Amino acid sequence: MSDLTVYTYDWVPEPPRGYVRDLRIRWALEEAGLPYKVQGVPFKDRGPDHVAHQPFAQVPWLTDGDLSIFESGAILLHLGAKSDKLLPGDARSRIEAVEWVFGALNSIEMASVPWSIFVFSGWNEGSPAWKFFDGWVGMRLDRLEPVFAKREWLAGTFSVADILMSDVLRLVNRFERMSKHPACRDYVARATARPAFKKAHADQLAHFAAGDAKR
Amino acid sequence: MSDLTVYTYDWVPEPPRGYVRDLRIRWALEEAGLPYKVQGVPFKDRGPDHVAHQPFAQVPWLTDGDLSIFESGAILLHLGAKSDKLLPGDARSRIEAVEWVFGALNSIEMASVPWSIFVFSGWNEGSPAWKFFDGWVGMRLDRLEPVFAKREWLAGTFSVADILMSDVLRLVNRFERMSKHPACRDYVARATARPAFKKAHADQLAHFAAGDAKR
Repeated sequence: MSDLTVYTYDWVPEPPRGYVRDLRIRWALEEAGLPYKVQGVPFKDRGPDHVAHQPFAQVPWLTDGDLSIFESGAILLHLGAKSDKLLPGDARSRIEAVEWVFGALNSIEMASVPWSIFVFSGWNEGSPAWKFFDGWVGMRLDRLEPVFAKREWLAGTFSVADILMSDVLRLVNRFERMSKHPACRDYVARATARPAFKKAHADQLAHFAAGDAKR
Repeated sequence: MSDLTVYTYDWVPEPPRGYVRDLRIRWALEEAGLPYKVQGVPFKDRGPDHVAHQPFAQVPWLTDGDLSIFESGAILLHLGAKSDKLLPGDARSRIEAVEWVFGALNSIEMASVPWSIFVFSGWNEGSPAWKFFDGWVGMRLDRLEPVFAKREWLAGTFSVADILMSDVLRLVNRFERMSKHPACRDYVARATARPAFKKAHADQLAHFAAGDAKR
């Protein structure tokens, strides 16, 4: 029997709530129907114990018995090996899921996170740097649009690739960058309509609200 | 028998030479001693045939018989399954390698590529945006420094995680951002001193030089 625990902060400020990456792990666990616990760790004081599990002093990490795993991509591939609801069983579809896992995290999120920092910080006008970073996200969405016009989920059936890709795109959608990309927008809507997403999202919000009460 | 072909551009301008990501695939194949071919595809006209293999119209992709795989992270995990010179055999070390694969691509490269764009474009002074992105890379290097002070390779023995991490850090080092991070710098020097890196790097330079001759 595996004994799965998701570690996340015990509290975060309002803006990132609903977007902290433990969501990805909760969502996958809910999709697979695997039992798990959630453990809060201090947001403010991140000492050596924290860094021993997550070398960048971030969250989430997952423990599976005496294994401890960081990076949401690595955690989802680990969970994928436990359930064909997370990774398809046949070799070709599985490779397709894995390439889109990296596509989400290294081709899309590498463009979308810097873009979101510009928007969030109010640096989103005028400068050549802003134009470059906004154009980069636009270029990526232009390439994703025909992908989603032709398929419901990235690897044929729903997989961890869709958890990562739709979570990455949610942030782009939050700042309304998808008005010209309806297939991308529909994909995010389709993914976030899943009961497992809704449960994971509500649970994360409740977890951080409970953190407010303890402060 | 596998029949492995690496696809990259037939030519690129001078600045990215030695840094195009087919290097990562060549390097892994040289480490593993797997036979492979390299096939050039047009840099300028990237049509539907290209996009069918690489949806972002980039390189590299790898074919393995009738499988076609994009994203350097996914390709290296695929090759890792073929050789314990690329991924350690025991479960715990293998998980460690996979988490550092994602650490390189999603925690370090997500900060280092935007940073390199600022530097390369001459936007690297004064603005709050530049200060943020430079600080982000600095924060990540500060976290990597104690990691490399304590170990030679990320997963105990050399693995695909080291190919990705050292290639990501090479770009940071190119623009001299590591003067205060000697363990990171030594790690990059150690990785790039490997014969497999040197061969892959020389082969990429020769490949693009041959592209010059055909123009």
